[in-house]
Formats: sequence, structure tokens, C-alpha cells
Amino acid sequence: MSEKVLAYLNENRDRLLGKLNEFLAIPSVSTDSEFKKDVDQAADFIVTYLNDIGFEKVEKQETGGHPLVYAEYNGAGADAPTVLFYGHYDVQPVDPLELWESDPFKPEVRDERLYARGASDDKGQVFMHLAVFEAFMNTESSLPLNVKVCIEGEEEIGSENLYDILQGKKDQFQADFAVISDSGMIAKNQPTILYGLKGFTGIEITVSGPDHDLHSGMYGGAVRNPIMALNHILASMKNTDEVITVEGFYDGAEPLSEEERKLIAEVKGEDYKEAAGVKETASEKGYTAKEHTMARPTFEINGIYGGYQGEGTKTIIPSSATAKITCRLVPGQDPGNIQQKLEEHIKKVTPSGVTVEVKKEKLSAKAYKVEPNHPLIEKAAKSYTKAFGKETVYVRMGGSIPVVEWIDDIYGIPIVLLGFGTPDDRLHSPNESFPLDSFDKGMETLVYYWNEVNSK
Amino acid sequence: MSEKVLAYLNENRDRLLGKLNEFLAIPSVSTDSEFKKDVDQAADFIVTYLNDIGFEKVEKQETGGHPLVYAEYNGAGADAPTVLFYGHYDVQPVDPLELWESDPFKPEVRDERLYARGASDDKGQVFMHLAVFEAFMNTESSLPLNVKVCIEGEEEIGSENLYDILQGKKDQFQADFAVISDSGMIAKNQPTILYGLKGFTGIEITVSGPDHDLHSGMYGGAVRNPIMALNHILASMKNTDEVITVEGFYDGAEPLSEEERKLIAEVKGEDYKEAAGVKETASEKGYTAKEHTMARPTFEINGIYGGYQGEGTKTIIPSSATAKITCRLVPGQDPGNIQQKLEEHIKKVTPSGVTVEVKKEKLSAKAYKVEPNHPLIEKAAKSYTKAFGKETVYVRMGGSIPVVEWIDDIYGIPIVLLGFGTPDDRLHSPNESFPLDSFDKGMETLVYYWNEVNSK
Repeated sequence: MSEKVLAYLNENRDRLLGKLNEFLAIPSVSTDSEFKKDVDQAADFIVTYLNDIGFEKVEKQETGGHPLVYAEYNGAGADAPTVLFYGHYDVQPVDPLELWESDPFKPEVRDERLYARGASDDKGQVFMHLAVFEAFMNTESSLPLNVKVCIEGEEEIGSENLYDILQGKKDQFQADFAVISDSGMIAKNQPTILYGLKGFTGIEITVSGPDHDLHSGMYGGAVRNPIMALNHILASMKNTDEVITVEGFYDGAEPLSEEERKLIAEVKGEDYKEAAGVKETASEKGYTAKEHTMARPTFEINGIYGGYQGEGTKTIIPSSATAKITCRLVPGQDPGNIQQKLEEHIKKVTPSGVTVEVKKEKLSAKAYKVEPNHPLIEKAAKSYTKAFGKETVYVRMGGSIPVVEWIDDIYGIPIVLLGFGTPDDRLHSPNESFPLDSFDKGMETLVYYWNEVNSK
Repeated sequence: MSEKVLAYLNENRDRLLGKLNEFLAIPSVSTDSEFKKDVDQAADFIVTYLNDIGFEKVEKQETGGHPLVYAEYNGAGADAPTVLFYGHYDVQPVDPLELWESDPFKPEVRDERLYARGASDDKGQVFMHLAVFEAFMNTESSLPLNVKVCIEGEEEIGSENLYDILQGKKDQFQADFAVISDSGMIAKNQPTILYGLKGFTGIEITVSGPDHDLHSGMYGGAVRNPIMALNHILASMKNTDEVITVEGFYDGAEPLSEEERKLIAEVKGEDYKEAAGVKETASEKGYTAKEHTMARPTFEINGIYGGYQGEGTKTIIPSSATAKITCRLVPGQDPGNIQQKLEEHIKKVTPSGVTVEVKKEKLSAKAYKVEPNHPLIEKAAKSYTKAFGKETVYVRMGGSIPVVEWIDDIYGIPIVLLGFGTPDDRLHSPNESFPLDSFDKGMETLVYYWNEVNSK
């Protein structure tokens, strides 16, 4: 039954890649309001696609922010299971643009990789699903299971409206299980099922001092420098042993069992040094880099700015300085509580002569662990192995997918994280790419899986 | 003899202010190569002006960078003293532009203040000299002393070429004393002679980690975050008691005597809190803000940047982070030696997993103290008092004017720092301005002084 579908994908490969390129060429950067129209156009692309292949009730739902694309396929009948397929069509900003070797919105193949912003995260992986749906519809005239499609345009800005929609439209989105392809394999061609994801929270700290930039000669020695004050605050939050020194930060965090440490040690992960281009890794004292990344909380400064940043020198004491911080959490940590503790710590250590403002990110998600031996997950692993010719491994990862926690929270259904990205995809960075053979094998996996799901 | 000259300045006030506005309207931002032509145009303005009023040997000297305007007046005869008048026609950048209430290069008078970039630092003060020269030439047909004019276009980028010129053209620039108007009064209408200036040095620190921005979920916990590493480095260099904690930084620094502390306490300086818009001052433990600003070394971070600075969130570990630092020094500290100590400290505290690059600013100057009871300085104080109707005070200030140290070093002549700026001028900041009455009284001071200098 899979053969015809796979043959279709093979015969139509060039045309499908052409369609994917069209999709990737739309600069759907959700964080920047300048791209609002483009984000909308990316939603329209999916709407048209789903209509063309025969999905029903295709809707571009208004969310208050960027639209969400919803659609249904009900042709498999009342006895067949229904999957909620989630993905996102928005992408990260592209700066620094000068580091891209080709235009991020003019997809280009080099060394059997497709280079474009969103090639891996998540437009490329969303498109694999669309193409597989098309292949079933154009060969079998049906899909082996019922489908509800939920593809949002706000993932990269924290899925601001998604929770309310999932919560408010339970009848519409209700399904038997969910499938998400917005993650990666631990190594190229190594089928990987994520059984744990980290939670997520963030804050932005702004330290304000003088009400205007001051001449450093006239006022140096008389006022607190907001950049230095910010440095003192931040340096007090994590030490050089990579231990987070915010009081209570680790409270309740599920400890890493010896058994799990062994499991993590056995996973043949990527070479962090090579992938990141660093001479040495740095991880929490007492934990390996793999353990820290997969299963210990993190605290990262994502950006900092203040004062003069141009060419040459400007001898000022700036009026303010800002840092953006995000944390990845493990089971047992509550995002709101973490934000609270960060804020309390900051208020406590802020020196006199400056004021501090802590903006709390709206986005937050608890960490998530799924049950790896659920039949739907075992079937996914089997399909994965069949397509890639290699045993599937089960891992925890450092990334956060808030929607996973929300679907769990609202629907309580099993969630299958079928990711096809590779460690070299450079998500969120210049020169994002996706291997063409992962595109092929990923679609093959999906074809097997949809057939497998409805088999006894 | 001064009356006719003062009457001329009074009668021609509007026209002279119009000329000044022309001068200020030229965006001569020397730090930014985009404005190279404008910087050149500002030099041309002075060349034309000096030619028009009858100065000799007017030259736009090429320097390798921005040109220097040289000119002579020799009409006072061999017995009259010769003054070297130094000033600069280049200005600081204007960013953040959005904080300006009027265009920085469209001079505008509000509340009897002239608002424009350079109104006080230093085009406004340079122009006062030009106007006074004009007034003498057009009334007395002569000046009471000989003049050598040296107006450079690179002060705001560290006077990169000036030292070599002063050193290389000793015969041309040699004079009996020097006058510089590139400083301020400690309060509006309070005649002030600076007897001490701080030295200056600077460095730029760049911390580099991963060779591209990384996804904070995939790599958080595996690599050192360059922003956090930079924070740890910087926080280790000055503590929250405002004490610089770089080993050896204070070595050899001339201590502040009890006598001088008394002198400083007596100076009725500006209200730092009001001028800076802060609720509390912050100064080195054991010293008042006035003491620290005037007579203790400082360490200021002028700018910092790294990672994502745009709207919203970008969950990255950035590949690098940079900070710009300048220090103000007191007598007994050597700038090169200080740069060395900063670098040694930084190398010592840089954590593993990142590399650090320290760029040393070319600009450097030792601190300078002048002899306050030299007759030429006493005459300046007398002229000042006559024009402003108030006793002149002698102070040390936190600013640095490298040219002062260079003239002292190369020529060994007395240097008179006749500054007319006020504490509210917002040098180097948005909304720089200069009071119109300081313009009038400053020119009056110069008229008295030039007449006084050659009197017995």
C-alpha cells in the first residue's frame, strides 16, 4: 500500500522541491512587524495547498496576531484514529544577514543541502507532511487516518495566541494523538524520538541610570554606569562553573538519575565542539555537556546592548543598558516561579544609583516527558527505522516546544515528536539548511507511519 | 582700546550668530567615514573665514586623516608675544538621533540657548575666537599679539595625527603660550580656569565563542556564552564600591592631599544628581563624587553589544560580545602601562571555552596639571572676572584634552584653558547646546585678554 505513494513522491520529487522553494522564498519573519504581509502570504500558501489536495474546512483563522491555518480530512471514517498535526510556517529573523552565503529567502542547493531560512525550522518539515498528504490523495484518493491540521505563524514569537485557541476550540482541535515535526535527530540519519523536552521562560532586564548619555570625563566618578551595573547583576546569576546562582533556581528540579545518566552517556550525540566551533565545551560543574544540554536547566543571555556601538570611540556613560535572557527548564520547575525568582534576585543585587526593570516574557512552558513505550510511539519508531535503516533512539533534548506542553495540558493525548532535522541545520543562525536525503527519508517515514497507525 | 572691538561684536551680533549657524550646520562627524566630505567642508569654512579677515599663510594641512587648519597673524611685531590657539572643528556622532528635540545640524535657539551638535564642543567656542579676531581686524586693523591658529578635525577620534604634526613642525607651531577653549565653567557664569586635567586611555574587549550563533536549546549547557563571559570579565574590573579592581591600576597615582580635598570641597560645583538625572550619586569608596570626578581615576564602559538586540526574543547563544572601555587617569599614571594592566587582568580572568581580543585605543594622554599663578594665567583670570563680573575659580576636572599634554610635552609652554561651556551643555549627548550670553561674555573675555596679554 505504501509503494504507490512512495513512487509518487519519487516521480514528483523535483516539482515538490520547487513548491517547497516557493514556500521558503516567502520571508515569513514573525518577530518583525515589517514582514506582516509576508507571514500572511505564507499562511495563504498552505491554505491553497490544502484546498488543492482535497482537505476540508480549510480555514485561515484570525488569532489577533498572525493567522493559524486549520484544515480537516475526515475520509478515513469514524473508526480510524484522528491525528492532530501541528507545525509552524513562521521563521526566525535572519540577521546578521552578511554572514549568509546565499540569500536566506532564495533557496539554494549546495552539497545536497537546501539552504534557506526555515528549511529545517519548520517550513521544510511542515512541507514534508503536506507533500505526503498530497501523495496519498493523488494515489490512493484517501488517507489511512483522519487528520486535523494546525499550522501556526507565531511559534518564533512564543505562540502568543495558540494556548487560548487550543483551549477555546477544544471541539474543533480534539484528536486521538498529535504529531509534531519541529525537532531533530541527534545525528544525521539517526532516527530519534524525543521523550523529553525542556520548559522555557525568559526575561528582559533594563538598567537605567542618568536621564541622558553623559560625558565620561565630566561625570565619570559621580554616577553609577548602567552597563557596569547590568554586568554586576548578570555576573551574579551564573558563575564560571556554569552553576546558576539565583536563589531557589534549582528548587524542585527533577534530579538526573544514575540510570538516565547512563542512557545519556550511551547516546551517540553530536560533537559539540565541532558543531559549535569551540575548542572546549563548558557545562554545569558535576555534569557533562550532554547531560547539561539534555537534562539540566540552563540560563542564557541571548543579547545585550547599551551605549555606543558604532565605529571608533564615544566617551559616554550611557543612560541605560538591556539584556535578554532565556532559561530552559526541566520537569519540576515552574516557569512563572522561575521568573519570580529571577526578578527577586535582580532586585536584591541591583546597586544604588540605578533603577532596574524586569520584563517577563509571556511565553512560558513547563518541561515535558512522554511515555516512550506507548503503541503510537512504538509504531513511529518502527516506521522511522524502516525508512532510515537504523534503530531508533529515544532521547531528551534541550529545546522547548511549548505547544507540546499545552496539548498535553489541554487534551491529554499522546504526542509523537517525529523530527527530521540534523545537528548541522543551523536553526536560528545564518546559513540554515536541510539535507535533501532527510527530506526523502522523512517523507518515507511519514508514509509508513500513517499506514502503520491504522493497522492492528 | 577694547570698547571699539566690543561695540563691533555687539553691532554685528546677529550676523556673527548667522555665520556660526552656517558652521554648525555642517555635520563634521569625524568618527564616521560617511561624513568625510562634511568634515572637509568645515575645514574649508575656517580657511575662508581666516582668509577673509586677513590672516596669513592660511593652510588646510593634510594629515593622513581629516585636515588641520593652520594660519598666522604676525602684525603685532617681533616684540609682541605669540599665542598658539588650538581648537577643533569636528564633532561627536549624534545618535540616538530620536532623542534630539531639533535637528542636530539645524541650529535652533530655545530659551536663550543655541541647540546644535558642536554648539559647545567645540565649534561654538572656536567660532568665538574667529569672531573676536575679526572684530579686532575690522576695528583696529590689527591684533594686540601674534597668533598661530591650529584647528584640527580629529579631536573626537583621538587626535590621531596631531601629535606627529606638533612634533614634526615645531618651527611652524612654536609660540610663547597656548590658549585652548574646549572646556567649561563649573557653573554658568562662573569664570573657571582648569589647572588640572585627567589623562585618558581606552580598550575594546571582544569575547568570541562559537563560530556562529547557536540555538540556545540545542547548545545551552554545552558551550560558554560569550556575553556571560564578558560580564564576568567586566564585573571583575570594578566593584560596586566603584573601586577599580584591576591589579596595579592605582599604582603611582598621585594621592589626593587633604589640602586639595578642602579646595575641592569649597568649589561650588554643579549638582550632579540634577544634571545627570539620577537619584543618588555613586563614587569610589572613601571619596566624594566631586573628588572622584575631579581628581581620582575612572573606569567606564562606554558601550556594550552582543547577540540579538531587536524586537521580541531570539533564543540564541551568540558567537561574540564586545565592550568599549575608557579610563580617565590622574598624574602619576601612564596610559600605556594602564592598558597593559587592563589586558593582563582580562587575560587572567577570561574563562575557558572563549577567546578574548583586547584592542588598545591609539589615543592616550597623561594627566596634566598647570601652574595656576603664572602671569599669563593670572591675566586670563582677570579678563574672565571683568567680563563675567565674578571671581575666577581654579579647578581640576575629569575630562581629558590630550593636546594639552602634547603641547606641554613638545613645547613646554604655558597653556591657558579658557573654557566657556556650562554644565548643562550636554556635550556628546542629544540636545547639545550653548547659552547665548556665554557666547557674548566669552568673546568679551577674549577681547580683554588679548589686550591684557601684551600690556606690561
